[in-house]
Amino acid sequence: MSDRVAIVGATGALGFGLAVRLAATGMPVAMGSRSPERAEEAAGKARAAVPDAECTAVVNQDAVRDADIVFLCVPFRNQSENLTNLKDHLREGQILVDATVPLAAAVGGRATRTLGVWQGSAAQQAAEMVPEGVRVVGALHTVGAPKLGDLAEALDEDVLVCGDKRADKRRVAAILDRIPGLRCVDAGRLEQARTIEQMTALMISINARYKVHGGVRIVGLPKELWPPPSSS
Amino acid sequence: MSDRVAIVGATGALGFGLAVRLAATGMPVAMGSRSPERAEEAAGKARAAVPDAECTAVVNQDAVRDADIVFLCVPFRNQSENLTNLKDHLREGQILVDATVPLAAAVGGRATRTLGVWQGSAAQQAAEMVPEGVRVVGALHTVGAPKLGDLAEALDEDVLVCGDKRADKRRVAAILDRIPGLRCVDAGRLEQARTIEQMTALMISINARYKVHGGVRIVGLPKELWPPPSSS
Repeated sequence: MSDRVAIVGATGALGFGLAVRLAATGMPVAMGSRSPERAEEAAGKARAAVPDAECTAVVNQDAVRDADIVFLCVPFRNQSENLTNLKDHLREGQILVDATVPLAAAVGGRATRTLGVWQGSAAQQAAEMVPEGVRVVGALHTVGAPKLGDLAEALDEDVLVCGDKRADKRRVAAILDRIPGLRCVDAGRLEQARTIEQMTALMISINARYKVHGGVRIVGLPKELWPPPSSS
Repeated sequence: MSDRVAIVGATGALGFGLAVRLAATGMPVAMGSRSPERAEEAAGKARAAVPDAECTAVVNQDAVRDADIVFLCVPFRNQSENLTNLKDHLREGQILVDATVPLAAAVGGRATRTLGVWQGSAAQQAAEMVPEGVRVVGALHTVGAPKLGDLAEALDEDVLVCGDKRADKRRVAAILDRIPGLRCVDAGRLEQARTIEQMTALMISINARYKVHGGVRIVGLPKELWPPPSSS
């Protein structure tokens, strides 16, 4: 049985890209937005890109209700508001995958710079804001949204996954590894989001300079990145 | 004519690794240390690894005197002291390549965490400390020292090079790109060292988890990463 997936912010570039890529693997996806009209519009676009896509359009609060894993794909300036709105809807046992990046662009600064977040990172801020029992995993920060949203583009990069429970990271990796060309790497505890979120700004800088949609790969890793938990 | 290279801290793992890799390409290298005996010992080891290595053993102050490009490969806790000692020896027009990483290990913390540096990064601290006219480039942070120092190990990874002048970065890249298996990527202005230095801690975490000496690659880049300056 697969985990049921919801995307909060599925009308944004990253959320939409994730939705179509997952839909293309045959996975049902709840596409959430603040407005039902915009959710429906995004789901329609997804179904146009993936004719047999099982995408349902829902408002964010409803999207998370039936999900096991909730991807939070919103701009940093909306992260707090979104988490506040979801407080009464998220429930114990769910995994919230935070992809938020505190780019300085949120306050009119450069997208090649980041803001300092009191908790250390946007993901750690999310961990502070979710209801008790909801666990946060960070992922997808370095994956470029335009490329993700264009099924004609072949992906060939890593997703750095961080979180405090390996079992949670494994479940998130099981979802994202379905997408051809993405490979999930265990990048450590949630606190590593401090660095990984900043890598987005670095990639924006590199991509702008070289006029590409590049990604990150960790080289020299073993074949099996998510070995089964030892039974001992 | 190649730039003449000196390594400050060539007795350390990273400095020594860089010395043998450059020596193996036929490049003369001034290997600097605080003590002439330790410099000689390191140069001897380099000549054992690369029989025709043109490695000279010098104290740090003498090493930098005849160099065009000085690699600073010292632990963070020694960075300030080294730069203070070099103040009267570095001169205008030289490039200082800072490879320092402010790992929390410098103060007994974890190597998977970093210290906050007032200037933003160790490289920016170096830029504040060098004499006027000496320009700082950041590089080599994510390249693992043990692998670099072992010529039997094939390298296959990127070097993220940051600095405020493209011409400086190009000169540094011309040196490091001589080493088979390393590829220099222009990672932006010196301020990007904030992120790149932290990627060392991230790589230490990933390497420990997977028991490897991994590296970083940026995928999706064009073939020519250092196009000649446009003449217009």
